[in-house]
Amino acid sequence: MTKKTESPRPEARLPKGLQDISSAEIRATEAMLGTIRSVFERYGFEPLDTPAIEYTDALGKFLPDQDRPNEGVFSFQDDDEQWLSLRYDLTAPLARYVAENFQSLPKPFRRYQAGPVWRNEKPGPGRFRQFMQFDADTVGAPSVAADAELCMLAADTLEALGIPRGDYVVKVNNRKVLDGVLESIGLGGEENAAKRLTVLRAIDKFDRLGRDGVELLLGKGRKDESGDFTKGAGLSPDDVGRVVNSTCPLPGDNETIITQLLLLSGTAVGEEGISELRTISNLVQAAGYGDRVRIDPTVVRGLEYYTGPVFEAELTAPITDERGLEIRLGSVVSGGRYDGLVERFTGEKVPATGISVGVSRLLFGLQLLGKFKGDAVRGPVVVLVFDKDRLADYQKMVQALRDAGIRAELYLGSSGMKAQMKYADRRGAPCVVIQGGDEKERGEVQIKDLVLGAGLTAIEDREEYLKKQAEAQFAVPEADLVEAVKKVLARHGG
Amino acid sequence: MTKKTESPRPEARLPKGLQDISSAEIRATEAMLGTIRSVFERYGFEPLDTPAIEYTDALGKFLPDQDRPNEGVFSFQDDDEQWLSLRYDLTAPLARYVAENFQSLPKPFRRYQAGPVWRNEKPGPGRFRQFMQFDADTVGAPSVAADAELCMLAADTLEALGIPRGDYVVKVNNRKVLDGVLESIGLGGEENAAKRLTVLRAIDKFDRLGRDGVELLLGKGRKDESGDFTKGAGLSPDDVGRVVNSTCPLPGDNETIITQLLLLSGTAVGEEGISELRTISNLVQAAGYGDRVRIDPTVVRGLEYYTGPVFEAELTAPITDERGLEIRLGSVVSGGRYDGLVERFTGEKVPATGISVGVSRLLFGLQLLGKFKGDAVRGPVVVLVFDKDRLADYQKMVQALRDAGIRAELYLGSSGMKAQMKYADRRGAPCVVIQGGDEKERGEVQIKDLVLGAGLTAIEDREEYLKKQAEAQFAVPEADLVEAVKKVLARHGG
Repeated sequence: MTKKTESPRPEARLPKGLQDISSAEIRATEAMLGTIRSVFERYGFEPLDTPAIEYTDALGKFLPDQDRPNEGVFSFQDDDEQWLSLRYDLTAPLARYVAENFQSLPKPFRRYQAGPVWRNEKPGPGRFRQFMQFDADTVGAPSVAADAELCMLAADTLEALGIPRGDYVVKVNNRKVLDGVLESIGLGGEENAAKRLTVLRAIDKFDRLGRDGVELLLGKGRKDESGDFTKGAGLSPDDVGRVVNSTCPLPGDNETIITQLLLLSGTAVGEEGISELRTISNLVQAAGYGDRVRIDPTVVRGLEYYTGPVFEAELTAPITDERGLEIRLGSVVSGGRYDGLVERFTGEKVPATGISVGVSRLLFGLQLLGKFKGDAVRGPVVVLVFDKDRLADYQKMVQALRDAGIRAELYLGSSGMKAQMKYADRRGAPCVVIQGGDEKERGEVQIKDLVLGAGLTAIEDREEYLKKQAEAQFAVPEADLVEAVKKVLARHGG
Repeated sequence: MTKKTESPRPEARLPKGLQDISSAEIRATEAMLGTIRSVFERYGFEPLDTPAIEYTDALGKFLPDQDRPNEGVFSFQDDDEQWLSLRYDLTAPLARYVAENFQSLPKPFRRYQAGPVWRNEKPGPGRFRQFMQFDADTVGAPSVAADAELCMLAADTLEALGIPRGDYVVKVNNRKVLDGVLESIGLGGEENAAKRLTVLRAIDKFDRLGRDGVELLLGKGRKDESGDFTKGAGLSPDDVGRVVNSTCPLPGDNETIITQLLLLSGTAVGEEGISELRTISNLVQAAGYGDRVRIDPTVVRGLEYYTGPVFEAELTAPITDERGLEIRLGSVVSGGRYDGLVERFTGEKVPATGISVGVSRLLFGLQLLGKFKGDAVRGPVVVLVFDKDRLADYQKMVQALRDAGIRAELYLGSSGMKAQMKYADRRGAPCVVIQGGDEKERGEVQIKDLVLGAGLTAIEDREEYLKKQAEAQFAVPEADLVEAVKKVLARHGG
């Protein structure tokens, strides 16, 4: 704590990768969460909340060889020296919950959960150390019908959020296809787990680095533009070719892609994976989602725990930022099947599959597309304080407005009338209420319509100006305050 | 990590003091948060979100003499060795935010924030290490009109949540009254801060321990029923008397209490505090809250940072638990003025005041009062899987129901019809949809109304039974599925 020693006062700042969220973004996020929730509910999922803190070993982020937690999570020790961590996703806590409550849950168990997760990673543009996820999972369903359903759920969610059909795609693949290839080149088994993860992460970069980049990462390694070198997986050129062929984009519709995949595959597990893809393809076709849910061999997901179908949804319409530069948003929904996560606790296989909506990233994309600004909320009517000795009178007016359901507040600062008007402007107040000594004597209040008032300077015709001016500022008897404010609000859309 | 060494499998369990939250409680909490939000919005507050993690020194929880964080917070070190902590309330992060963004904020700055906070404390019944708060604060308002407004906000919030007038009270006091007394007995100044905190915590227990208990805690100390001894503040009997007299319950209306307080007070700061209480009393009286906002000298709040008015709201109707035992719920809303919190960062005084709704505790109380159960949400219509080869057909039915806005799902497990029916029951499904081979051939589906079906066994009359049975299970052409399900839903309230 160098800062502390230098100065008796702490510096007001946030740790890197963390952010405060403004009212406009909160309102947009709330509206978005409400929409997602209604789609997930329609699919029959039920809400569940788990706490932010879990035992590190329950999250699977404990490094047993080093007796300490993985670096990617925020961790600390409890009084009894057991390691605790902040959750880094909502899937690991779900697995803990299911294992803990297995007997009492309906099977399949279908839950959704929304909440922040934390990653102790290097932050970057748009990459935060705290961000929001919205997950749906079905636990105890071995059938890939559960996976197909999640692909449809992703599609319905994006459309409910205002993304038109054709402007997004849900891509689905099956880990078993790649597992078959990896097995065939000698990368099966627990002892090759680390190497397989390197391979997965390399393939996961296909979108960004293209085939050449991925081939380097699978082979000797790759130097990026900045000169930084990433170590490769060290596969032979032959093996690199086999891996890349099974995970590069294939042309055609789902049926055509399946046919091509079958030609590439040569293992039992690979064929099982392709057969599952065919089932998913048939199910989404039958339900009318065939045009939106597409088999795509490039999807692998850079996470080790997936055991079957994996999915990603992307926005396909070009997105540009404020400066007109095109932005590569990446996947906004992702997920897959993880039949081994509950087994970690219980020793018994419990099939499970789920998706996660990247709420913050999706909101960012939607806003750049001009699609989800969140409802603008009107500022409060501000009752100004002309005479500090008559606060109680002004407070009474505020309360009368609130009782009528009108958003209203008393000016609570200590500045004069000019600053009070400026404050009302800053807050987006539709109008202010003023009662000076003269008005008080006449039993009246002045109402000043700030929206009309702001338009006055643009009026050139004198008569028109005077007419509008009279509309923009007028006096009414105190008893008519609420009705008069209602009329002003009605002028500007209620 | 003893567990880790003993067994290759982690145990599925939560750390003490943390809890999973059920769907019913989530729905009730969401409804409650929505109600609180609408009242806070009506008062003109705007939402703000800050992250869960802050620099420990920014939260004021760094112990500089020991170079480590206070024990009451969850803390960990960042890569650069600076200490981070999980927020323990929403007020300290607000002070950091205001200090960081002071120039660009409207003044006064009025924000609300809802979210979890974490306390690294010994958990107990109803005391968790993660719980939800809902705060409203006005920063930059020196006038006690801001404090009076928060008392009214607390009252309006409780009424909006269904607590009738008369079944709650908002109690207000002023720290300055006690500060004056403490100054007069030689406990003023920075050097007595720790002792003042002990005094505050003792007085804060008046409700629970009564006058005798508080007197012991202010003097030599107190042994509780279990034999545990709590060290006292060590005041002389005379000083104990003066402190207790200024903080024990006084009879009468607000004006009467103010008169009595004036007799007790002998310092300038104390009289200033009483004068502020009189202003608050006048303001709430004028706005029609005089019967609900009451001056109560026992309110001190056991937190060191309050500098002026302090408030607490309590439910006054007796509350009993499931076993009929009366429960002492304590305050459900609390807060006060903290003019020094922003100054910690900037060196400049920024007056501020706020309240915090204890969401979890209030929900607990409301539920025991039978007042806020949250809307029961109907389970999904479950389409059963009679023939595993026809999943696509069943999926299509589910999608047709969902497209019509009906909550529906395909049974995704691998069990037979009996288990599927049991599952539908567990999920609270209003009806199930069945299509076996015979129905398929006839182009029909069977619909089974589970609500009517459950009532059948109680019917004794044979004719009535047969009639109801026919209503509870019937076949319709496939094309009429959605209409038929809608009719069943309409039978049970839409």
